[in-house]
Parts: sequence; C-alpha cells; structure tokens
Amino acid sequence: MLSDTALAAFRSALGSDRVFDDAATRAIYACDETPRQVEPDAVLFPTSHDEVAALARIAFEHRIALTPRGAGSGNVGGALPAPGSVVVSFECMRRVLEFDPANRLIVVETGMVTDDVDRVARSAGLFYPPDPGSGAYCRIGGNLAMNAAGPRAVKYGVTRDYVLGLRAVTGDGREIRTGCRTTKGVTGYDLTRLLIGSGGTLALITEATLKLLPAPEAVATLRVCFASSRDALDAVSRVMRQSVMPCALEFMDHRSIDAIRPTGTADDLPPGTRALLMVEADGAVEDLPRQIAALQQALDGNGLLEIRSGFDREAIAQLWAARKSLSHAVKRVAPLKVNEDVVVPVSQLADFVDFIDHTAHAHRLAAVSFGHAGNGNLHVNLMVHPDDADEMDRAHLALDAIILRALALGGTLSGEHGIGTEKRRFLDREIDPATLSLMRSIKQQFDPHGLLNPGKLFPD
Amino acid sequence: MLSDTALAAFRSALGSDRVFDDAATRAIYACDETPRQVEPDAVLFPTSHDEVAALARIAFEHRIALTPRGAGSGNVGGALPAPGSVVVSFECMRRVLEFDPANRLIVVETGMVTDDVDRVARSAGLFYPPDPGSGAYCRIGGNLAMNAAGPRAVKYGVTRDYVLGLRAVTGDGREIRTGCRTTKGVTGYDLTRLLIGSGGTLALITEATLKLLPAPEAVATLRVCFASSRDALDAVSRVMRQSVMPCALEFMDHRSIDAIRPTGTADDLPPGTRALLMVEADGAVEDLPRQIAALQQALDGNGLLEIRSGFDREAIAQLWAARKSLSHAVKRVAPLKVNEDVVVPVSQLADFVDFIDHTAHAHRLAAVSFGHAGNGNLHVNLMVHPDDADEMDRAHLALDAIILRALALGGTLSGEHGIGTEKRRFLDREIDPATLSLMRSIKQQFDPHGLLNPGKLFPD
Repeated sequence: MLSDTALAAFRSALGSDRVFDDAATRAIYACDETPRQVEPDAVLFPTSHDEVAALARIAFEHRIALTPRGAGSGNVGGALPAPGSVVVSFECMRRVLEFDPANRLIVVETGMVTDDVDRVARSAGLFYPPDPGSGAYCRIGGNLAMNAAGPRAVKYGVTRDYVLGLRAVTGDGREIRTGCRTTKGVTGYDLTRLLIGSGGTLALITEATLKLLPAPEAVATLRVCFASSRDALDAVSRVMRQSVMPCALEFMDHRSIDAIRPTGTADDLPPGTRALLMVEADGAVEDLPRQIAALQQALDGNGLLEIRSGFDREAIAQLWAARKSLSHAVKRVAPLKVNEDVVVPVSQLADFVDFIDHTAHAHRLAAVSFGHAGNGNLHVNLMVHPDDADEMDRAHLALDAIILRALALGGTLSGEHGIGTEKRRFLDREIDPATLSLMRSIKQQFDPHGLLNPGKLFPD
Repeated sequence: MLSDTALAAFRSALGSDRVFDDAATRAIYACDETPRQVEPDAVLFPTSHDEVAALARIAFEHRIALTPRGAGSGNVGGALPAPGSVVVSFECMRRVLEFDPANRLIVVETGMVTDDVDRVARSAGLFYPPDPGSGAYCRIGGNLAMNAAGPRAVKYGVTRDYVLGLRAVTGDGREIRTGCRTTKGVTGYDLTRLLIGSGGTLALITEATLKLLPAPEAVATLRVCFASSRDALDAVSRVMRQSVMPCALEFMDHRSIDAIRPTGTADDLPPGTRALLMVEADGAVEDLPRQIAALQQALDGNGLLEIRSGFDREAIAQLWAARKSLSHAVKRVAPLKVNEDVVVPVSQLADFVDFIDHTAHAHRLAAVSFGHAGNGNLHVNLMVHPDDADEMDRAHLALDAIILRALALGGTLSGEHGIGTEKRRFLDREIDPATLSLMRSIKQQFDPHGLLNPGKLFPD
C-alpha cells in the first residue's frame, strides 16, 4: 500500500485535487480495454511536464511503480495497473503548446486527444495522418507508447513517422529532450523512436513535436465485394503491386459480414458476398478519377462481385456504413472477443486467413477477421463466452497457433496495438535472446529500479 | 600496434587474402572525405555476416578498436580510423540476399552500393527513394550509419524511413536482429532506428531489410531563377505551404552560381540571377501537368526572373546541368572547402542565409551555400586555403557562429552527413546533459569496451 508520506508528497507536488486514492477512482482506473482489472493504489492527474517530473522523482525516491495512462483505450493491457502501482493519467495534459503551420509542426502535451491534433492541423490546411480507430478519445501519449496507426498507414505510415521530437521523464526522474524540430536531423542517437512503441516502460512522455502534412483536397472511396476472402486478398496483393497508393485498404471476412447483418448495413451487398474491401484514394480533386480508375483496374479479378464508388461526403459515408458498424456489431456476436493484432507479409495474407479459418473451426470457435490489409495487418477476434472455461481454453490454444503461424510466415506479433501484458509471453518467439537482453539492458538505463509500467512488454 | 596473435586470428577467421596490414593499404584507408588522415593498423574485408561476427569477437577478445567503413565518402570523419584501430571495410559484402517485389522489400548486405539497390528495385517497377549525392559509390551501410538522404527526402523521407529490419554485431560480438519484414510492427524496442544514425558506434550492421516503393511513372523539372536568395527562399516557404509535394526542392545561392560560371552551365541563366531553385515533381504522366502548374503558381512571387520546365529526359538533364556542375566547380574556387550540413526550420531559411553571408563577409571568407531547401537542410561551404593559417582560423570561427545560429533558430547540427569527428564538439550545444548521458549509457550496453568507432559522435 502507498505510504502516507508518499501520498503527502504527491499531494504537495500536484495539489490535493490532483491525487486520488478513493475506492471509486481506483476502480475506474483499474482496467483498459482488456477484460481484466487491477486496482492501483492511487491515481495522479498532473497538468504539466514539470508536475510529471516532480511525481517521477517522488516515485523514484519512494520506489513506487507508475502506470502511465492516456484514455485507457488500449487492447493489450498496456495501461492495466501493476499491483501496488500508481496510475499517472495524462488526461489533464491536453494543451497545444505551439502550432507552426509554416513549418508544418505542432507541439502538444501528450494527453491531447488524437483527433483534436488533426482538427487543429486542418484549421490551417494541414492534417495529422495517423488515424487509430479510437481517435475520437485516445490520447497522443498512448499512440506514442504503442506506435499506433490506422487505415491511412498504408499510404502515410504510422505514428513513428510523424514525430520530430519528444520531451520526457525517465524512471529515475531525469528530464530529457529527444529529436529536433526539423524534418531532417541526425544528431546523436534516435531516442525519439526508441521511446515510440516502448509502451511506457522507458519514460513518461510529456510533450511531442509532431509533423503535419498538407491536407488532401478530396477523398474517393470504393466498396468492393468478393466471393471469398482469398479473392479479396489476392486483389489486395494486386493493388500493392501497382503505383497508386490507396489511403485505406481495409478487409472484412465473411464472419465480419455475418456479424453486421443484424444492423442492416449489409443489406445492399450483392448476394454471395463473402469478403469486402474498402479502398480509398485521396489527393487533388482533378487527380482522383485517375487514381480510382487505376485502383479499379487492380481490383478487377477472380471473384469480384461488385465495385461501388463514392466521390462526395454522403456517398462515401454510405459506402463505409458496413465497415463502421463492425466494431459495435462484433460485440453482439459473443460476450467477449479475444483480440489479436498480427501482421504478415501482404503476399501471405490469403494463406494466413485460410489458416485462421481452419484453426478456429478445429477449435470449434467463431473467428471474425478484418484489418488493414494493405499493411498485412489483421485483427483476428475469437468470439467467446468468458464463463465457458473450456471455450476460453480452446480460444487461447487457437490464438497461440495463430500468432505462431504469423511469425512463421515472416510476420510480427503486433502491428499497432503493442505488446503490453497480453503478448509478452510471445516476445521471445520473435526476438532472439541476445537482442532481447539488449532491450532489457536499455530499459535499465532509463529506469534503473523498474518503476515504469512494470509487468509489460518483457516476458517474466 | 596490432599484435601478431590478433593478426593471425583475423587471418584465420577471414582468410589471409582478406586481412591487409601493408603500408599501401593502410595509407589508402587512412581517410574519408574530410581533409585528415590517420592510418589504421590493418584493414579487414569480411565477406559475410558470419565473418563480421567472427572478427568482432576477436577484436573484443584482444580489445582492438574497429572503424567500420563503407565507401569512405562521408564528410564528417565517420570512417576516419581511430589511432590504433583496424578498419572493417564492407566493400566485399554487396550481395542481394533476397528480393521480394510482391512485398516491396529487398534484403541486402550493407556493402551494397546505394544506386545498385535502386537499380535492382527498378527492374521490378519499384524504387529505393533515398538518393544521396554519392549514390553511385556510397554504400548502404554508410547510409544507415549517417541516416543519409538527398533531394528526394523532401517528398519521400530519409534512410530511416526505408529500413524494416537489420542484422548486426555488437561491440562484444553478440549477433542481433532488429525490426521485422512488414511495414507495420511494434514488437519490443525500436533498435532498428537506434542503430540508424548511430555512426557505427553501437554495432556493425551487416544486413538490411529495405522497404521499396512503386517507381513513379515520370518526372518533370523546373529550373527557377530569382533575383536574390531571400526571394528564392521565400518561394521555398510558399511551396512548402501548399499541397503538391515536389520530389526535389534544391537551392543554390549567388556564390554557387558564380562558382559554376567557368563551366558554362550558367550561360543560359537570365541576367541578374542571384539564386536558383531546382524543383521536381514525379508521379503519373497524366498528373504531372497539374503538379507542375501548382508548383509554378507557388513559385511565382517577388524576384522571380524565369521558370523553365522540362518534361523529357533530355530537357530535364539540361535544366539540371547548372546544379550538377556545382560539386566539381566548387572545388576550383579554393583548394579546400570547410563543409557544413545544418538544418533550420524552412521559415527561417532566408534569415539564416543572410546570416551566413554576413558572417562570411565579416570574416573575409567566401561562403558557397546550397542544399535541400524543402527540408531546411543547407550545405554551407567556406572556401579556404589550408596553408593560410589565419584564413583557416577565421573559417573555423565563422563556422562555429553559423552552427550556433542554426541551433538558435531551432535547427539541428546535421541533416544527413552525421556527426563523426567533425561536429562532436558541438553535440552538447544541442543535446542536454541528461539526454547525452543516457546516450552514453546506451552505447555502453552495445559496446562495453568502447571498441566500435571510438572518437566519433560523443564529445571528449
């Protein structure tokens, strides 16, 4: 339990209205999107870099573990409190510190909501490309921790590609600055990208200098129906072999389509549709027809049932209706989804989805698969009843097989959700012992007492 | 001096035809593009990852410092041998280990010539975007060490953005693998980007998995003449505020133009030209006219004297003639150029070039400035006579002032050349003590005895 001395020190550093150890608050901050709960000893709400530095020094002095947290919208337990830890919530750090459209950059506190960054950027004709599905509420800090991405990654890349520099506090309370303010810079080691994707285990990131791009003038969308997943994923391979880069290339398998049927958003799909691609292009109004024509040509092939295109806001929204209804619809298939975020080389996607179907079938499970196919990034959801112990066991066996298959195909454990608590037992299947021990020794330099987000990322 | 035992061990590991300690070889490998020479004790030419691992273990056992080297074409002494060190030349490691066009990747040994990577990629309709000026002879390993870039960086980014994974050997002979084979992946710490830009001080990189893009169908070029540097750089700011991203946005100041006059390549510039921009667009043939029109509109403004455009190979080559003749022509201005590679925010470029001109004038020096203006990356060359001690002193004073000004403007020490021996004394002007000490402690984890490229990157 947190000592009275430590609690008093936190209160004195942050103010008593920023330090909570009541049962209700501790219960609220006991979980993220993973179906597990661990109550923290307290929850801190710093309002500035300096306050984060102060609380980190107190934690270091008292050897208190810290669990950094954005919106708690992660899928792998990254913000799940370690037992006996104190949650550091960045929710109150959401200021824009500087917006410099001429140099296409913005400096924000890391509690800022991702979509808000984009909104500010668009006010000056710019945009912030990373677009995680949780963009409306997730925080930049969480995006940095997990190197978040979304549909646009296929054309624009991931969070890592849009960070120029960071301000952060290490596990022993040292304040550091990484990177620079320019789009080029090779001065010292790239600690910026070392922190990105480190899941809050190396430092508490307080401020980020983000790179922005000119906002595309317009968007056009294709909804493409196929007779099978293999047909759709072969089309993805064809799209990725030609030169027009779509700004979204999303895949839904037949179980995803079944899941949305009750919502009505599948009503206008042609009969026999067993897989769906959402393909989007962006750019100049005058150039979009060319892009769409090239994409249509690449999509044409075996099993193509229908292509519908939309060029205005209303038509585009209607085409996306099926895909947008999916998240919610999946939750109605079963009380719990055991969720995976693996990546395989694009050319292996069709075989991989076959393997998932066979594995789910062999374990008497329903698997709903969809994802960012242009990056080979698949979200596999095994639909289960948490009270059915046998089904849960089968789900975990199936998931293990799926993850190991992704690795065997030359893939990776996580595309955008990160490792957290949920995947750390697989880490040494992908990373060799020498490299893993180097990562551990780097952790040691940032956080000598292992106070930052313990129990995450590394296997026990 | 290298002991006979160590020499024998290297010979036994690599073969005697791969280990040279004769005076002629040691003299050849005593320098890179910086005007200094330090003879190594020997030069090793490993032919595979395994041989690099073997030589690193021998060096570790005998505590021999290693100086990794690609083509020796660096500008900051990155491949300048440390006294008593052994050069590890990657010149004989230039194999393509795997070429996978379907997944847009290539795996190469790090001694491969940069342009050769691009050539292989183009054979399948792809390309490798980083295009350092030395691409015809520099090696991928050197590009990785310095996070190299070139004109295309303004649109496509730098080396860092095209590396999916690495294979490497640490300073104590451990073999590591970093990253993955897919375009998304957040599994463990990003050691890939930690190694990129580390100047050979963390590990010997033996193999790289590089990301490729679809090759643009066509290119179109504008040569744009202005009455002053400020006019040209204001135009650069306007270009970077609109949405058509050029694939080159190169600047030459009036002294650069004076330098090329003897070559005849300035003959067709309109009278009064005191600054030149080279602006290039790439993409689909059918979309280039739109891009060029948008760029021309952005370029139009104060001091614009002439825009010439080229759409075919011959016309484009003619427009580039002035810029291409510059490197060679600069060498005739004075026996030595003291060369800088700094970056400032794009909006500060005009003021910065003014400052350079005033500083050079105040120190009675000629400064030739050109560079990748779209990234704010300027190459400043102070033209000097190395035998004139007073002039050399003035040059170093002026250079110090220029570097510190770049930092004061929110810039960074190096855009693409790296730190090496030449800039390490400035490192602590940009990087604070806490961050720098963290970098040193990371170095320690990779290279506990400081054997990898000693005397580079870090200040004494």
